[in-house]
Amino acid sequence: MFFASDNWAGAHPRINAALGAHNSGFATAYGDSEIDRAVTQRFSEIFEREVAVFFVATGTAANVLSLTAYNKSGGIAFCHREAHLIEDECGAAEYLSGGARLHPVDGALGRMEPKNLERAVARFAVDNVHAGRPMAVSITQATETGTVHGLDDIDAISRIAKKYRLPLHMDGARFANALVSLEATPADMTWKRGVDILSFGGTKNGCWCAEAIVLFDLDRAEELAFLRKRAAQLFSKSRFIAAQFEAYFKDDLWLEVARHANAMAARLAAALEDASSSRLAWLPQANEVFAVIDRKKVEKLKAAGAAFYDWHKPHGFDGHIGENEGLYRFVTSFATTEKDVDRFADLLKA
Amino acid sequence: MFFASDNWAGAHPRINAALGAHNSGFATAYGDSEIDRAVTQRFSEIFEREVAVFFVATGTAANVLSLTAYNKSGGIAFCHREAHLIEDECGAAEYLSGGARLHPVDGALGRMEPKNLERAVARFAVDNVHAGRPMAVSITQATETGTVHGLDDIDAISRIAKKYRLPLHMDGARFANALVSLEATPADMTWKRGVDILSFGGTKNGCWCAEAIVLFDLDRAEELAFLRKRAAQLFSKSRFIAAQFEAYFKDDLWLEVARHANAMAARLAAALEDASSSRLAWLPQANEVFAVIDRKKVEKLKAAGAAFYDWHKPHGFDGHIGENEGLYRFVTSFATTEKDVDRFADLLKA
Amino acid sequence: MFFASDNWAGAHPRINAALGAHNSGFATAYGDSEIDRAVTQRFSEIFEREVAVFFVATGTAANVLSLTAYNKSGGIAFCHREAHLIEDECGAAEYLSGGARLHPVDGALGRMEPKNLERAVARFAVDNVHAGRPMAVSITQATETGTVHGLDDIDAISRIAKKYRLPLHMDGARFANALVSLEATPADMTWKRGVDILSFGGTKNGCWCAEAIVLFDLDRAEELAFLRKRAAQLFSKSRFIAAQFEAYFKDDLWLEVARHANAMAARLAAALEDASSSRLAWLPQANEVFAVIDRKKVEKLKAAGAAFYDWHKPHGFDGHIGENEGLYRFVTSFATTEKDVDRFADLLKA
Amino acid sequence: MFFASDNWAGAHPRINAALGAHNSGFATAYGDSEIDRAVTQRFSEIFEREVAVFFVATGTAANVLSLTAYNKSGGIAFCHREAHLIEDECGAAEYLSGGARLHPVDGALGRMEPKNLERAVARFAVDNVHAGRPMAVSITQATETGTVHGLDDIDAISRIAKKYRLPLHMDGARFANALVSLEATPADMTWKRGVDILSFGGTKNGCWCAEAIVLFDLDRAEELAFLRKRAAQLFSKSRFIAAQFEAYFKDDLWLEVARHANAMAARLAAALEDASSSRLAWLPQANEVFAVIDRKKVEKLKAAGAAFYDWHKPHGFDGHIGENEGLYRFVTSFATTEKDVDRFADLLKA
Repeated sequence: MFFASDNWAGAHPRINAALGAHNSGFATAYGDSEIDRAVTQRFSEIFEREVAVFFVATGTAANVLSLTAYNKSGGIAFCHREAHLIEDECGAAEYLSGGARLHPVDGALGRMEPKNLERAVARFAVDNVHAGRPMAVSITQATETGTVHGLDDIDAISRIAKKYRLPLHMDGARFANALVSLEATPADMTWKRGVDILSFGGTKNGCWCAEAIVLFDLDRAEELAFLRKRAAQLFSKSRFIAAQFEAYFKDDLWLEVARHANAMAARLAAALEDASSSRLAWLPQANEVFAVIDRKKVEKLKAAGAAFYDWHKPHGFDGHIGENEGLYRFVTSFATTEKDVDRFADLLKA
Repeated sequence: MFFASDNWAGAHPRINAALGAHNSGFATAYGDSEIDRAVTQRFSEIFEREVAVFFVATGTAANVLSLTAYNKSGGIAFCHREAHLIEDECGAAEYLSGGARLHPVDGALGRMEPKNLERAVARFAVDNVHAGRPMAVSITQATETGTVHGLDDIDAISRIAKKYRLPLHMDGARFANALVSLEATPADMTWKRGVDILSFGGTKNGCWCAEAIVLFDLDRAEELAFLRKRAAQLFSKSRFIAAQFEAYFKDDLWLEVARHANAMAARLAAALEDASSSRLAWLPQANEVFAVIDRKKVEKLKAAGAAFYDWHKPHGFDGHIGENEGLYRFVTSFATTEKDVDRFADLLKA
Repeated sequence: MFFASDNWAGAHPRINAALGAHNSGFATAYGDSEIDRAVTQRFSEIFEREVAVFFVATGTAANVLSLTAYNKSGGIAFCHREAHLIEDECGAAEYLSGGARLHPVDGALGRMEPKNLERAVARFAVDNVHAGRPMAVSITQATETGTVHGLDDIDAISRIAKKYRLPLHMDGARFANALVSLEATPADMTWKRGVDILSFGGTKNGCWCAEAIVLFDLDRAEELAFLRKRAAQLFSKSRFIAAQFEAYFKDDLWLEVARHANAMAARLAAALEDASSSRLAWLPQANEVFAVIDRKKVEKLKAAGAAFYDWHKPHGFDGHIGENEGLYRFVTSFATTEKDVDRFADLLKA
Repeated sequence: MFFASDNWAGAHPRINAALGAHNSGFATAYGDSEIDRAVTQRFSEIFEREVAVFFVATGTAANVLSLTAYNKSGGIAFCHREAHLIEDECGAAEYLSGGARLHPVDGALGRMEPKNLERAVARFAVDNVHAGRPMAVSITQATETGTVHGLDDIDAISRIAKKYRLPLHMDGARFANALVSLEATPADMTWKRGVDILSFGGTKNGCWCAEAIVLFDLDRAEELAFLRKRAAQLFSKSRFIAAQFEAYFKDDLWLEVARHANAMAARLAAALEDASSSRLAWLPQANEVFAVIDRKKVEKLKAAGAAFYDWHKPHGFDGHIGENEGLYRFVTSFATTEKDVDRFADLLKA
């Protein structure tokens, strides 16, 4: 009953096995081996167009280097107030970009509200050196709140970004979970809607460590190559990332895993909604479930071995939380089993 | 006959297997799991004192964050002119430290010459804001030139660092190779001689990706924790690094692998010295061999499948290189076999 | 009728004359001349304790280097949402600090509300590397909204800063205006209440260019000396700043000028409150006046040669602004004359 | 007899008087006043083409922001080993550029040797992310060693910069001294030979504080505007710089002052060459004179009130310095008088 985070799981057996298939023999280092190139080609197929792919060590690196590739003096990037970039990356964006600012934009339940984005961007006059200048928009898909931007939402945000000539970045730490939730294609959810650069996360969806920057705006590829190396993010034995992605994409494992995690989240959500001492805070759309639960119940659940986190009220949540209640987050992954969820459901009902 | 680099090898079977032993089950993320803590404890045992350990993604990250932890305004770090920090890290030190300068110090065959260090440091008056100020000394062990600083060399450099109140960093990307070469203990080669912070590399010695900052100066531990996270170097599934180190240290695998690599280098060196069309450029002390070879011979060797790099003349090499000759580098690893070396030797003689 | 800003004025005749008194003869460069030292001594007398003084080129430099002197990895500085640091410095704080973040704190009419500060700071757990960590508090005195923090307000903010071991910075771009408004001593308004570092502005109060960092926490002096030079803020002919400050302090010129500017602001405020087409938005406490005025009237005033800016509604202003009205800012200085104000008053009444 | 540095002088009377002519009245702040614009226009006339002009506080700021405007990830700027950028700016280039590296290029007596530049630049393969990549070339005119690059020298350096698509920066802290030495026009010495961006210094040549970046590559103007503001280098009362430049250019005062300083240097040089206890180290071409002098004589000269600095041997100086001799630097300025020089000459002969 480990629902603390999807990064508490290990690696999917097929992903782990892929490492064993590639650990012998010699291969060019620093991303220039055959398997590195084959996996890049695979990304291009999946996204239905040529892309440039840069493996990096963490989702934070993917997010921050994506923004840095577009930074300029006095640059300001717009992202949701509760974005991982703002809340969970220790100022890496400000640091690695050489001083960019993250401007929070509000929106209900983790989704950026286009009107708020427009208002925030429009405030900066083009030639006012005092205030700084907009340089990028970043959205998170799936969001930190377990919701998903619909394709129309992405369109609306993209139109504003284009209007102000700003590149659009997508933080896809849970890209696969959003994709299967929308039943969209990777192309549909990204460059076809104007996304210029994507943090493509595999780690939370069953890899050991597999994060990549997927670049649609190929003019930035040279800059990103230097940027990644300079940021100490270029793996020498790059094939250990490539091998994971190879297995990740093979037979659509990534989508299968994401569907499983989302299904486990839905099952967990149903149990939380059904029980008398708990209720869903809002409907989950990916692999994160948020529920209001009686604190005494929570103690019992934790005593029985369930692991999950207290959570802060997100912007746009106006549900009631009683004095003896709290808001909690549950995350599922490839490693979450029906049995685990059902055992948790039984405890809830007990 | 892949002698291009030790990072062209994959992972040692026992290291790779360790991942499989840890890929199921749940574990706290971000370095706080049981295996993370057990491995940190193991580092303390190996170094015979309490140390703080920070896993990072690359050797560049280990080097640069080590220096950054000690940086100050106008800070200048002293390292060998041919150090990886200067030659091969794309300005990561300057970038991630927020603008530190690397000051090259000469010394023969990759070893920093204490007299040159003293002269370089002494030039900076303590209160001269124009020139900047010394902030660290970094040495590489084993060096980029396949040599090793003797314990006395480290003592001499350390004394100068202490005299000027500068922390001493060791780039140990090939730490194990140097250690078995000197038949020293980890403690003897580091903190007992005044090393304050160490880049401890496992990747080149048989891991997939296992680099750590080992900190002896525990006062800097809090700063380094934030520094690592902010530099996008904190792995979520940190146990995938821990598992590699667990296997690396088990039954002294790391020393066994390093001894093997060094032995293969010695075997290769003997072959290169014996052949009529080649000769050793200088005596190897670890797992890198440098030789002067007839260019026509080189063509034949490469045609036969041998992989190795052209190399530039290092400082302090005054051997003769004929018009039809070149200087070449060969690197061995856990994956280098006697058979491979002997096949290469046969080609040399042919 | 130039009320656009206090930096639209030139230099007070006595300040300008001081330059002429020092332009001949030779003097040590880079802040080490006799007049430099005499002026530093004068600062110590004025603040009734030893201080370190660093001349810099702009108020932005003073603010940003003050914060930078205290920055650490993942550092977060707390300042009012409408602080100059956030609104008007083009991200200089993020850039020059190497990536610090500015965390906005709300408070009515430019004053930081202690409760909001406490809530903002308390949210950051000491050892949570993901969120970053508090590193400084900065308040503006007088505020950007023409108000002044009372000594009790500073005490309350300082207590919170001390509780969380954060240094307290004061942006004193309009320090003199606040000082005479409170009828306090420089010591009372700063270090006696826990201010550790001060941006001391002379430019807006009658100098050409005279900004200084006044440091009460002398342990940081060495760091600041290097920081200033590295930030390209060390003047070679430093005496041209020193000469201005010498005249500024002589016979309390600075206080006389500030009293004049504040008096002109009060006179202007009275006129704005009296006229039928305008009213004060809130009571001015220094040399900035904010008023709600009928837009048609504004057109006429501007046509008649009056210069002043449209302004955004500050946090905590809940006054009514009619559909045909706007909010406007007026700033007075040494160069504002009674005649000018009265001419403007006449236009208002007309 | 103050020959320590040209920045030990104050301000030329006509420059200082200009401040008095502009200190009353109101003017738009931040560089947008009439006099600011008129002076920018004046720069365009002087350079015989449209230029963009950015006043900054110090020569260091001019140099460093010039390079920063062209920086990229892993960027390396090439400048003379003894350039002010390397020796005297406390790492400002590395810091403000966000981590660029300065690569020293040798050349005799302060002049960059084109062959050495070519060799240094050619070493960096275009797509080698490990080594970083060239991003600019910077030369100093007049040099730190009192010499001047001839127009042919600039051509030769410029051709290499263009060949590698690198912008060419000129550090003109002593621009006027070089100009009158070569009897060239400003256009001839800069953009007509391929200089893209210039640090134009007025401070050492009789201003209080008047440094400007003169940009010939107008595409970078927007970036530089933000860069300057973000670096805390945008003066509010910008007209105090403009007023100095207005007087500086009026009736060619700047050239008159530079000619005077150079003539005083020549007079001083003659005296040093004539005396038995001293000799010129090399021929001065601008306003700096270097001489080898008997140490006992030096003691006497200093005791008599002469101020000048010990100097280190520059690259390319192969003259003899006896055991009882030292190398010394003398700098002249608008404030150096014939009487002073002759008094010094008498002391030399005595």
